[in-house]
Amino acid sequence: MSQKRPPAKPSPQPPARVTIADIEAARLTLAAHVLRTPLLAAPPLSALTGAEVYVKYENLQVTNSFKERGACVKLAALEAGERRRGVIAMSAGNHAQAVAYHARRLDIPATIIMPVTTPFVKVKATEALGATVVLHGDTLRQARARAEAIAAERDLAWVHPYDDPHIIAGQGTIALEMLEDAPDLDALIIPIGGGGLIAGNAIAAHEKKPSIEIIGVECALYPSMWNAIHGADKPCGGATLAEGIAVAEAGALTLPVVRDLVSDIILVDESQIERAVNAFLTLQKTMAEGAGAAGLAALLAEPSRFAGRKTGLILCGGNIDPRILASIMVRELEREDRIASFRLTIPDRPGILGQIASRLGELGANILGVDHHRLFLDVPAKGAKLDVTVETRDAAHAEQIFRALKDEGYQPVRMAGGAALE
Amino acid sequence: MSQKRPPAKPSPQPPARVTIADIEAARLTLAAHVLRTPLLAAPPLSALTGAEVYVKYENLQVTNSFKERGACVKLAALEAGERRRGVIAMSAGNHAQAVAYHARRLDIPATIIMPVTTPFVKVKATEALGATVVLHGDTLRQARARAEAIAAERDLAWVHPYDDPHIIAGQGTIALEMLEDAPDLDALIIPIGGGGLIAGNAIAAHEKKPSIEIIGVECALYPSMWNAIHGADKPCGGATLAEGIAVAEAGALTLPVVRDLVSDIILVDESQIERAVNAFLTLQKTMAEGAGAAGLAALLAEPSRFAGRKTGLILCGGNIDPRILASIMVRELEREDRIASFRLTIPDRPGILGQIASRLGELGANILGVDHHRLFLDVPAKGAKLDVTVETRDAAHAEQIFRALKDEGYQPVRMAGGAALE
Repeated sequence: MSQKRPPAKPSPQPPARVTIADIEAARLTLAAHVLRTPLLAAPPLSALTGAEVYVKYENLQVTNSFKERGACVKLAALEAGERRRGVIAMSAGNHAQAVAYHARRLDIPATIIMPVTTPFVKVKATEALGATVVLHGDTLRQARARAEAIAAERDLAWVHPYDDPHIIAGQGTIALEMLEDAPDLDALIIPIGGGGLIAGNAIAAHEKKPSIEIIGVECALYPSMWNAIHGADKPCGGATLAEGIAVAEAGALTLPVVRDLVSDIILVDESQIERAVNAFLTLQKTMAEGAGAAGLAALLAEPSRFAGRKTGLILCGGNIDPRILASIMVRELEREDRIASFRLTIPDRPGILGQIASRLGELGANILGVDHHRLFLDVPAKGAKLDVTVETRDAAHAEQIFRALKDEGYQPVRMAGGAALE
Repeated sequence: MSQKRPPAKPSPQPPARVTIADIEAARLTLAAHVLRTPLLAAPPLSALTGAEVYVKYENLQVTNSFKERGACVKLAALEAGERRRGVIAMSAGNHAQAVAYHARRLDIPATIIMPVTTPFVKVKATEALGATVVLHGDTLRQARARAEAIAAERDLAWVHPYDDPHIIAGQGTIALEMLEDAPDLDALIIPIGGGGLIAGNAIAAHEKKPSIEIIGVECALYPSMWNAIHGADKPCGGATLAEGIAVAEAGALTLPVVRDLVSDIILVDESQIERAVNAFLTLQKTMAEGAGAAGLAALLAEPSRFAGRKTGLILCGGNIDPRILASIMVRELEREDRIASFRLTIPDRPGILGQIASRLGELGANILGVDHHRLFLDVPAKGAKLDVTVETRDAAHAEQIFRALKDEGYQPVRMAGGAALE
């Protein structure tokens, strides 16, 4: 990957390295404006991973992500003239809502540029928080160009999502709270998009506890910080469940901090992210978006590295599309064989479906769906195929149902996602 | 409903009215054993309901419900001989896991009786916490008879799910914490099953803040406490999403407390409970089981009553089957027209599906599923029916797609749950 970075807008402060004093000051700024979220031990996740897991619930912020911290610190630092003229930001996600929410609270006009492809619900949510939304461009890059043009034209203050000292200082307040609540944490695993979250928290945590290990996590489809650190050139791109950290270029201010203070970056694949989202939901009863679950995904990817260690995860965001979440949950049930599909070959005469349904009832299988196929080429002239999907107790129960259907002569074939498993 | 109550087992303490001193003592007992859960303002739920909503996150307890409080207080109060011989409880739900978890922590043998119909995952979860599970009977009533026989035979201490002073005192610690964190709460809405949760918290809250209003909530299918208070006889029964509060008889110890301290009981129907579960998930990013969402369901049922008032909800449990939760989420998307199905009439020749799919793509509709029907009786000899299910941005978008399909001559009919809407 090239080291080309987004054109930096001049910032009111020179972009010096953020210090612990900046982060302590940010904490005072945030006190009345942002939730001091709970840090809680997570015994079910500890049992799952072998680490001693603590979770910082940033998804409980009003707009459901940590982005409020940086945005609020940045907005509070503006001068009177800047506040009057207003701010502008470019984001299709959590940063947009965070800026809109705190701008309204501080009575600052906010303009948010989003790509035209942004889901309508996100546009509506941002407008509902009082911001003016401008839809422009098919990509974030085109939207950014438009945002920069508007910012210059109207002299609006630019709120960068990560490459800004105020943003970095604001995000770093999370580690201060975590180490206050659990001073004996051995390691923090922190998601990396542009690097604002990890930079601020690495500075804060190392200052408060020099022995703590900071490990970053990126999704394998967007290893931009990993590339920058390793001088490598892995491709960045593709559809990821963790769109909140799908950033193609490391930040100019965040990269040197990561280089100095972060011991390693773990790359997680989509299936690990999906498992982590599901684990947060089913074990911790909380909703994590893909990026929010990335820390847990890293624990699932390399459990031996954290075995027995007190490991802090930042559940940094909870904004995930309900349809995607529902589909993740159902896929997990299918993987656990708690939802199982069988294709049966049946004689095409009355009463057979009743016989099969009764037999499945005796076996304790709850029928979720039935599909009849008469047009398949491999169906005997007088026969038919029947697909039944049932809810089972577990994999052993699914196997028991399979054997019973076989014993009855229905030649069952296990199906998954429409394809035969065997 | 009759006033017949479950046969009370002799308790080590006389079943005197629980006092604030008992609840304060319970709090000391719980300090090292049970999470002091966060109470957080919930602006999105305030916007939804018009009340100023605060949520107590009892679903963050290790076994994901408030039941740990009472169970832990009860177990800690046992004498040495009782601890050695062990405890017994009857439950298919949260009480089972709460007793098993704290019994293991206190090194007390625990036997849990569950009906044979209990989902296998719940049996496994309880066994994983170290309890001996005995499956007996088709109903809770049969299971209870067996539990009482075993308790007598082996001289085991009985841990009642609600009708016990220690249990009531333990549950009451929730209100102490809530009023410490938010002393200006005007009202608490508290779910009622047997009444242990509301009795303990009504006593604690009234003592700490005499002006506070306590309102109970039951599911309309199981109005047992409502019946007892009103001398009424509404039927109790049926399948409810809130199985955690589906209790057919009010407790002997809890009823007089409710009569004295609870100003009203709101009955909520299944659709209100379902909406509340969905709102917790999509707005608060947290998982509530049906009973856990009952307080919010009451706010949805009677919003005018709480308008502008600081109202505390106890999110008392988060144990909901992932498949049911996924189905609730998808149904809500269908209600909002974010998932829409159309039945089209199409000429049965090559290329039509491609034309329709392309048109839907132009309209920004994401195709989720396609079904072909050739055998319907009302299909013209050379035609076919095609069901397409698409994801839309919102109801207006669904309407736009409908009109476009009509303009193309496909005679679209809106479908919901397999039935035509128009």
